[in-house]
Formats: sequence, structure tokens, C-alpha cells
Amino acid sequence: MADPWQNAYDFAVQVARAAGAVIRNAGEDEIKVQTKSCAVDLVTQTDERVEKIIIGSLKEQFGNGTHCFIGEESVAEGEPCILTDKPTWIIVPVDGTTNFVHGFPFVAVSIAFAVNKELEFGVVYSCLEDKMYKARKGKGAFCNDEPIKVSDVNDINKSIIISEHGTDRSIEKVTKIFSTMQKILRIPVHGLRGSGTAATNMCLVASGASEAFFEIGIHCWDVAAGAVIVKEAGGLVLDVDGVYAFKSDHMNIK
Amino acid sequence: MADPWQNAYDFAVQVARAAGAVIRNAGEDEIKVQTKSCAVDLVTQTDERVEKIIIGSLKEQFGNGTHCFIGEESVAEGEPCILTDKPTWIIVPVDGTTNFVHGFPFVAVSIAFAVNKELEFGVVYSCLEDKMYKARKGKGAFCNDEPIKVSDVNDINKSIIISEHGTDRSIEKVTKIFSTMQKILRIPVHGLRGSGTAATNMCLVASGASEAFFEIGIHCWDVAAGAVIVKEAGGLVLDVDGVYAFKSDHMNIK
Repeated sequence: MADPWQNAYDFAVQVARAAGAVIRNAGEDEIKVQTKSCAVDLVTQTDERVEKIIIGSLKEQFGNGTHCFIGEESVAEGEPCILTDKPTWIIVPVDGTTNFVHGFPFVAVSIAFAVNKELEFGVVYSCLEDKMYKARKGKGAFCNDEPIKVSDVNDINKSIIISEHGTDRSIEKVTKIFSTMQKILRIPVHGLRGSGTAATNMCLVASGASEAFFEIGIHCWDVAAGAVIVKEAGGLVLDVDGVYAFKSDHMNIK
Repeated sequence: MADPWQNAYDFAVQVARAAGAVIRNAGEDEIKVQTKSCAVDLVTQTDERVEKIIIGSLKEQFGNGTHCFIGEESVAEGEPCILTDKPTWIIVPVDGTTNFVHGFPFVAVSIAFAVNKELEFGVVYSCLEDKMYKARKGKGAFCNDEPIKVSDVNDINKSIIISEHGTDRSIEKVTKIFSTMQKILRIPVHGLRGSGTAATNMCLVASGASEAFFEIGIHCWDVAAGAVIVKEAGGLVLDVDGVYAFKSDHMNIK
């Protein structure tokens, strides 16, 4: 049977690469920072501009009304985030905006594609590292066209665990996160790490550099592309109930 | 006046690059892990092999008895760590051994050079990223031959702070580190990061990706090359007394 979405997959890789180049070349004036939910939840003109470029390119190619689009910044601006059975693109234009603002080396473009509420493929372009991660359901995961697989370490004492502090700086949230991290560190594990972007964190797990990544309060779009890549690299993606299903109407996995 | 150490500086860059290639190409069998001070303080055959290659190359070029060598792994094996007025090379063959073992993308070769107990230059090669950081006293700091400078952000609320958990997993040490990190995060700052290597962390500060890096219990060799790079990029290097001086007889900056 012909693969009905190969063309869309190839195009997503092209679009992610072009978006990454825009991010890499963003001038000083485009890094003017605004805030979203709080003083450390950052967004820049580049986030919005790159999302418009990505959605514009996809609509031009596939947008005869049959494809839907869920974009991080469009949702932030009030667009609906509803997953139907229609072919749906899920986009994070700049994952790791704080890193982008500072020039910290992990900034990713994340593009996923779902049909009948099932993820068909995911593309994560870590644009400062120039690493193109991609995976198509049933066809394996790749970084710069080399196959990747998750770590075969099954002893938690020999693992690197990735997590993030997030942007909620309330004493309750911060205390809880640090308490969890402290417990994990003292298991002991080899180390704790965090790149500052969920998409890149998932790709680090997919490529075996870390044994696990967890984060509470993450958005559906942050994990959509990474989820396909981790699964195709032989990994598991779970929510706190132990089952991962991509649901755009669940803005946070709680 | 002719620069008496330019030749040594250029050679250090060559040696660091060659050492980085050995690390990048290290086979599975060379990543067999041994431990040093505790179960999560790792060392591999590659650490020892690369240090021998670096010191071997430097001795061949400069080793007519007038140059001294302080290497992380040689000291671990019982060699003395004494800084005299003689030209002295300070070497960390694999900074970020835990990252190296896991394929986490920050692994550095660090080579510094001191004369009359003053650091003359430092070279840090982040070999998985292929970034060559270098600085010569009074001549600026560079990454892949492009000048770098520290961040001009002077508002701590807009900063990224780097730190590390280290390898001491005693409840006292871990509680103290997490308590400090929690306080910093809640200032609030934009974010906390840690690459897993002190040398790379210092270069991230030198290149403006982070506003500050702090770590307690670090070894003198871990900071020697990075210190020159940070200073030449316009930054400050301080110990807890507020004054940084490279002292090899102080194994830890306390």
C-alpha cells in the first residue's frame, strides 16, 4: 500500500529546516522579550513570526480546508485547540524560547501530524545544533538521517534523568519539583539534566543520551512530535495514568 | 615584544582538537566505566588514554624538563599536583565523563597553561558540538575563531544561572545544593541550567548564553582553562572569598 503521508512527512522536514534557519538568523531586534503566563514565561516576535511562516507554508501545500492546525502561539492568542479526525498539524515554532533569548544551545522547531487522532509522524529540528530528528509511525526514528534508538541501560543507578523546573515559580510548585529531583538524584542516578526544551529532551531520550525525561504541566503540543520520535526509537511515552494518548483538548497532562 | 607562548597556544589548540577526535571516535569497549570517589564519580579507559596522548604530545614538543604537567587522571593515580613558577600545563582529558558515557552532547577537553603561577592561556574543546573555545591573556576569547563576550544582562531576573549537582550524593550535600538552587530559581531568574561539565559551563558564560556559573567543590584543573576564557570574554572568576587565583595546591576551592 502506498504511504499516503510520505509527502507530508518530507515537506514537514523541509519546513522545520527553513524555520530553524529563520530562528538561527533572528536579529537582536527580534529577541525583544514579552511574557505570557508570568515574568519568566517568555515569548518573542520570532515565536509568532516563525509559527506564521510554518502554518503559511503548510496551508499553501495542504490547506484546501481539509487540514487543521494547532499552533502554540495561535492558541496563546485565542485560537481553538481541538483535535478532530481531520489531518491535523501540531506546531511549536520555538521550543525553548528562554534558551533562544539567551543563545543557550538548545532551541527546537517541533512539528507533528495526526490523522484520526493518531500521530502519524513527528519532526524536531534542534536548530542551533543543526540536528534534524524525525520519525514516521512504524518506520523508525532518525537524527540527521542516522537511525537512533533509546538507551539499553536498565539499571536506574546507571541512568541520566532529564527534567525541567518549568516557569511556575510559586513556592508550592518549586518545592515539589525540587523534592522530586532530590529523591531521584539520591537513588542515586548518574546525573540529572535539562536542556530547557521538552522537544529536545525527548530527542535526547530517543537517541539514548538519557534514560528518561519527565515533566509535569507540559502542553500537548510540546510532546506531540517528540512522542513519535521516542516511540519509534523503541521508547515509551506515558502520562501519569500510565497510558499516553495525544489529546489536544487536554491542554495540560495532569 | 614577541609573544613567547604563541607557539604553545597554537599547539594546545591542535592537541585539544586531536584529543576531541579520539573521544568522539571512542568505541563501545572504551566506555567501560570505573568509579573514582563514589558510585557516580565515573572514569573510563578513554579518560586515561586521552590524558596520556595529550601529555605525550606536549612532552614531545616542550618536554625538555622545563615544562611541568598537572593532569586530572595522573593526580587521581597519585602524581603530585604542585604549581611552581615553571611553565605548567593543566589538563582535563575528558571533562564531563558522565556525559561521555551516555553520549550526552557536552564533553570537553580542557588545557590550560601557567607561567610564574599565572595562567597564560586556556583551550576548551567541546568535542561533540565541535566548538573550539580559546583565550590568550590580553588577547580576547574566541569560539571557532569568532570573538565571544559575556552577556550584557545585568538584571538577575533576566538571567540564566548554571550550576551542577556534583557527584556527592550525601543527604547533607544534596539538600544544601538544592536549597541554594531553589532560592536562585525563586528570585526569580529566567532559568537554571547545567551542561554536566564545568569547562563547558564556563564557556557558556563566556559566550553570553548564561549570566553566571557557580559550583562548590570543583577541582583546580576543571576551571583553569575556562577561567582564562571567561576573563578574556569580559567576565569575572571568583572564589568564595571574592578573589580568584589559580592555586594547584588547593585541590578544592573552599
